[in-house]
Amino acid sequence: MLLYLTRRERFNAAHKLWVEEWGEEQNKAVFGKCSNKNWHGHNYDLFVTVKGQPDPMTGFVMDVKKLSGLIKREVTDKLDHSNLNMDVDFIPRGLQPTTENLAYLIWKQLEPHIEGCRLHCIKLYETENIFAEYYGE
Amino acid sequence: MLLYLTRRERFNAAHKLWVEEWGEEQNKAVFGKCSNKNWHGHNYDLFVTVKGQPDPMTGFVMDVKKLSGLIKREVTDKLDHSNLNMDVDFIPRGLQPTTENLAYLIWKQLEPHIEGCRLHCIKLYETENIFAEYYGE
Amino acid sequence: MLLYLTRRERFNAAHKLWVEEWGEEQNKAVFGKCSNKNWHGHNYDLFVTVKGQPDPMTGFVMDVKKLSGLIKREVTDKLDHSNLNMDVDFIPRGLQPTTENLAYLIWKQLEPHIEGCRLHCIKLYETENIFAEYYGE
Amino acid sequence: MLLYLTRRERFNAAHKLWVEEWGEEQNKAVFGKCSNKNWHGHNYDLFVTVKGQPDPMTGFVMDVKKLSGLIKREVTDKLDHSNLNMDVDFIPRGLQPTTENLAYLIWKQLEPHIEGCRLHCIKLYETENIFAEYYGE
Amino acid sequence: MLLYLTRRERFNAAHKLWVEEWGEEQNKAVFGKCSNKNWHGHNYDLFVTVKGQPDPMTGFVMDVKKLSGLIKREVTDKLDHSNLNMDVDFIPRGLQPTTENLAYLIWKQLEPHIEGCRLHCIKLYETENIFAEYYGE
Amino acid sequence: MLLYLTRRERFNAAHKLWVEEWGEEQNKAVFGKCSNKNWHGHNYDLFVTVKGQPDPMTGFVMDVKKLSGLIKREVTDKLDHSNLNMDVDFIPRGLQPTTENLAYLIWKQLEPHIEGCRLHCIKLYETENIFAEYYGE
Repeated sequence: MLLYLTRRERFNAAHKLWVEEWGEEQNKAVFGKCSNKNWHGHNYDLFVTVKGQPDPMTGFVMDVKKLSGLIKREVTDKLDHSNLNMDVDFIPRGLQPTTENLAYLIWKQLEPHIEGCRLHCIKLYETENIFAEYYGE
Repeated sequence: MLLYLTRRERFNAAHKLWVEEWGEEQNKAVFGKCSNKNWHGHNYDLFVTVKGQPDPMTGFVMDVKKLSGLIKREVTDKLDHSNLNMDVDFIPRGLQPTTENLAYLIWKQLEPHIEGCRLHCIKLYETENIFAEYYGE
Repeated sequence: MLLYLTRRERFNAAHKLWVEEWGEEQNKAVFGKCSNKNWHGHNYDLFVTVKGQPDPMTGFVMDVKKLSGLIKREVTDKLDHSNLNMDVDFIPRGLQPTTENLAYLIWKQLEPHIEGCRLHCIKLYETENIFAEYYGE
Repeated sequence: MLLYLTRRERFNAAHKLWVEEWGEEQNKAVFGKCSNKNWHGHNYDLFVTVKGQPDPMTGFVMDVKKLSGLIKREVTDKLDHSNLNMDVDFIPRGLQPTTENLAYLIWKQLEPHIEGCRLHCIKLYETENIFAEYYGE
Repeated sequence: MLLYLTRRERFNAAHKLWVEEWGEEQNKAVFGKCSNKNWHGHNYDLFVTVKGQPDPMTGFVMDVKKLSGLIKREVTDKLDHSNLNMDVDFIPRGLQPTTENLAYLIWKQLEPHIEGCRLHCIKLYETENIFAEYYGE
Repeated sequence: MLLYLTRRERFNAAHKLWVEEWGEEQNKAVFGKCSNKNWHGHNYDLFVTVKGQPDPMTGFVMDVKKLSGLIKREVTDKLDHSNLNMDVDFIPRGLQPTTENLAYLIWKQLEPHIEGCRLHCIKLYETENIFAEYYGE
């Protein structure tokens, strides 16, 4: 009997897509407006899903307040009002902060801290029209 | 050729999280504000997904009006404007009405009535930030 | 040059609509399911709008973090996970906690604390389909 | 390391549900208001999900601008402001344009054009309360 | 002490924008894709706002169930799953069923039936990006 | 007979709140995380409302495609994927790009170009929880 529990958190951040080895022209050709050298930004919506069996006493797969606190401590406090290319310890310099890469890195950052159940999915919205998901493999 | 069809229904209900065997202090320590003895409540969003092959004549996996009627009769008419700890015949007394447990119980309540296709998922939002899913196993 | 600034906060609460002087039958006739004696509840969305001139240095009509803190301290910390008929000091016993009355009472509760600009509107959603507004007169 | 990337596009269209072999009475009995001979219509929300490995240089599973352009060229430019029973080359005459059938046909229309990664899911909302999904099998 | 109460209802309809006196070319030049002769359609979101003083016993500006019933009887039952150019008794033939004109006509249709308070605003969404409002003058 | 017509457009941008005359400490004290020297960003939702009488032939207060094109040309093409402190010709250097100031500047930028009806309101969302409005006076 496997239940899935999801918690949404939010963060606002600046980024740009830019390959150092390429010139401005090639960056613009590949990334378009996302390569603006002075940055742009987004309101990100992050959905974290864990799975497990509800505790018979509490009815919780995981205490959602603890899950929220964990996401804040390990992920959104580091990402909120940050520059994703420069400010975040768990985003390697030079890696493009695309929605796909961010979803993957957030999984890596969060997964070791989930106890008593398992991380199932990281779903990250960059805009209302674009989101990425990672399921750990 | 398997298609998935989802219908949303809504209900508003009161509940509290409270373990009878525990005192007020322990309930507060575990459940926080959710243990307020005078109840609190939510607007729940329920998404019911069935799966099957579309009928060649109607193009329906299931008639969505029938699915809606079924969800209302078996689930939301019983839950809407109710107290989830006290009023609902398919929620055992003493079981915590968490989002996880509710998703599981709604599956049990609805599954025997799905005909001509199969129930795939119960997804229940408690707030815009918290939801649970159950896939029947 | 008048700018309007709005901050959303949220709370979840239980209530019922019930006139003590009436019997169960009349209450049911008037209030329908909203008169369930065991309560029901909602996720409320509260939009608070203030108006004024932006400060030339900060560009703020009001510091939105201060506005948020004020709404929490004076209003939503008192309403969240509460029973609106029983638990809240600024809701008179016996007054129906309808969306309309709540919007009015939240204005009365908040208005004396707004400094440096003026309260313009309280807008309160009870569900995605129902909301009330009060403009102070 | 498999990432899922989703792009939303939208279109507005007219349709009716109507089986030619049936009379008006039977169509009304089966399809209700959806059989109105003068048509009705919807704002459709289309979510297209692809899956693959992010490119090490760009961080893209697929360039989301290219995905958006592809969906527009092959799908939504043909569907937007159309009559789904009469106007669209990839919807066979006589097939009911239900949400389920549309999701299936959009998959068939789009799948041959996805390069460098794989189509994973077509999810189509007909209203905020009804959506269908197809995963290619 | 004036409170504003709003109720949302929804309807799905087909329409086209087309001036009979003009040829196909001019209609296309003015209305673009909206002039498709085979129709297109929308999910409309209708917000009806009334204003008045809350009743001291019930706390209602107007019983929201009665307001909902009234909107359905006078407006949305006539508009839902209809063709706005052909099927609706309160939309004059030949008048363009634009969002603006529909908001105006819905006001005219509903206003005589509001009792015990006053109609304040008709707000009509055609898509998530376009809406019209009418305040009665 | 005055109708109000609203069009939503969107843009994504980076900014920071920072007073040059102040040191880092004072900027942090006043603006908190919004003063991060490496920027942060948002998805902005812009609602532009015009008012006027619908044209008797077209039913338009203003052609919404023209309104959309005008907003893009004069406002969102300049703001999208930009740095609001550095990149935009109609935002004075040194003025704080708060939601309030942006709403005011967008009015100034757009108002001279509205023909055949009048600009009524600029409403700008910075997040789902914060928005500002300006009505021209």
